[in-house]
Amino acid sequence: MSQDRSITLSVDAMGGDQGPAIVAEGVRKFLSSDPATQVLLHGQREILEPHFADTQIADRVEIVHATDVVAMTDKPSNVMRNGKATSMWSAVEALRDRRAEACVSCGNTGALMAVSMIRLRKAEGVNRPAIACLWPSRNAQGFNVMLDVGADIRADQDDLLAYALMGASYARNGLGLVRPRVGLLNVGTEEHKGRAELKVASEMIAAAADKGDFDYLGFVEGGDIPSARVDVIVTDGFTGNVALKTGEGTATLISGLLREAFLSSAVSKLAALLSRAAMSRLKTRIDPRQVNGGVFLGLNGLVVKSHGSADATGVCAALSLAARLARSDFSERLANRIAGASALHQDAPKEIKA
Amino acid sequence: MSQDRSITLSVDAMGGDQGPAIVAEGVRKFLSSDPATQVLLHGQREILEPHFADTQIADRVEIVHATDVVAMTDKPSNVMRNGKATSMWSAVEALRDRRAEACVSCGNTGALMAVSMIRLRKAEGVNRPAIACLWPSRNAQGFNVMLDVGADIRADQDDLLAYALMGASYARNGLGLVRPRVGLLNVGTEEHKGRAELKVASEMIAAAADKGDFDYLGFVEGGDIPSARVDVIVTDGFTGNVALKTGEGTATLISGLLREAFLSSAVSKLAALLSRAAMSRLKTRIDPRQVNGGVFLGLNGLVVKSHGSADATGVCAALSLAARLARSDFSERLANRIAGASALHQDAPKEIKA
Repeated sequence: MSQDRSITLSVDAMGGDQGPAIVAEGVRKFLSSDPATQVLLHGQREILEPHFADTQIADRVEIVHATDVVAMTDKPSNVMRNGKATSMWSAVEALRDRRAEACVSCGNTGALMAVSMIRLRKAEGVNRPAIACLWPSRNAQGFNVMLDVGADIRADQDDLLAYALMGASYARNGLGLVRPRVGLLNVGTEEHKGRAELKVASEMIAAAADKGDFDYLGFVEGGDIPSARVDVIVTDGFTGNVALKTGEGTATLISGLLREAFLSSAVSKLAALLSRAAMSRLKTRIDPRQVNGGVFLGLNGLVVKSHGSADATGVCAALSLAARLARSDFSERLANRIAGASALHQDAPKEIKA
Repeated sequence: MSQDRSITLSVDAMGGDQGPAIVAEGVRKFLSSDPATQVLLHGQREILEPHFADTQIADRVEIVHATDVVAMTDKPSNVMRNGKATSMWSAVEALRDRRAEACVSCGNTGALMAVSMIRLRKAEGVNRPAIACLWPSRNAQGFNVMLDVGADIRADQDDLLAYALMGASYARNGLGLVRPRVGLLNVGTEEHKGRAELKVASEMIAAAADKGDFDYLGFVEGGDIPSARVDVIVTDGFTGNVALKTGEGTATLISGLLREAFLSSAVSKLAALLSRAAMSRLKTRIDPRQVNGGVFLGLNGLVVKSHGSADATGVCAALSLAARLARSDFSERLANRIAGASALHQDAPKEIKA
């Protein structure tokens, strides 16, 4: 995998909670950190242009004017019908036309998935695309992959099998794991636990493990998501979305209480001062901004959804993730993997297998 | 609510992960802390008796001999058929015969629910009983209620309505909230989000709010579970169980990383020493042992499930919760509330409404 391979990203500058200025700042950060990259930036030219005047990186940014903006509250079905003039549509369209190798947006998740579906189309063999997130974990790679975290509210056994294959492929290309360990999320690890379709899915995933180059662990529980037991957690988009937000909410609660604990006395304030370096490392480790970016899997093209409330650091992290995956030819490898049995070994990282 | 009202608890001494010695220690702790209580302790007499020899509280413990033990791996259906000689069965039976006012077990959750269902029967108007847990939160009461966290893997709209009524009643009697705020867990707060049955359930709960003496907030998300936005979170047992274990797993991950951060240098070790009092208060606040006890709702009788891995402090917390709820006549209030419209105001705490 060459760090220097030139990559163009198509970026929707509008529609995030923080406004286009934050996206522009994130783009500047990203371009400075990765010299072999260009950005097509979609949005209102008069708003975006001032952010890139007089900077050395201006020649690596091409602003693509789009008059409309998808709001966070817009219904996806409405955007599909009437959204052609939006920056989001324009950003996806550039990916479709191969003017860019990946698309990134901070906007409305449902709308982004809907526009991506109709413009990029689903990959062969995929019924329901999924969104995969990275989750801070005890594993050496620092993160686990979980999917689906919100592309669709349902998933049947065939979808769950496709998620296992796609998640394993993502873990290989995004995290560099040669043979990821895959688990199916359930309310217990015993075989008799859980819904009927989960038992069927479990048997299907077990049968696909060898060909898919992953180890199948069977059922895992919520407590395993941040653990070192598993690398890829497969679940439906309803459960995955609730789990993701519950984990974030718990982390927010604890960090808030921790801050208050440090402020509770003069002695604890001194302790806070002395532990600042250690706490800052801890914060970086579990900071959602560092692992920002839900990857849409199962489409003909690489789309990364940045958190709507991402700041410039978060936007930069999502852009870097998109660039890393684009450089690994992840989309093509994944498509080959899903398309059929002939795809054996095709999605291993380049340095391991040609 | 009188703290002095005499209460007898029926306790299954066997079947937890930690063995009967830990349960016995928890019982001693509980009896010492609450003088107006007695315990019927079910299990193997020769194992249990030595734990209460020569103690002042021995006359408040009656050991009820039971030869068999339900293992954590036993299938609930098997325990229902062949479990009559187990300590768990014996403990539930004492509640059924009104020899105790509540039953507590650290054993196999599925088996405890199954035995409770066949011996106590479902309360009138309840199709699926639920397990409610307390979740550390930003609210003044320190905890939110979530249900179902694992009694059943499915819940239809009628079940979700019953959970809302039962959860509100539990929040009133267990947490002292006069008018709890109830939310329905979904993947977004907008009305068009989520599964079809959730939209129907949402309308049904909204229509029942006035009569049920709660405020209905509509949909809430995973991030709201530990927040001050809501007091009672309603969901199906699959999603609730995953969320509960994800929250616990996230808390475990963060506290582990925190410990490592404090050990990372001489300076941070000093910080750990100085912040010990503050950290200990924080730990107490989010310590799952302090909020130990899943309450079975929707049965004719009060059953509390202690965490299988609870230590003596955890067992004592579960016993105290059972005693508090028994003293508030919670089961009767809840049954009245569910049974029908005539039950208006019947489950308010005694000091507020007769």
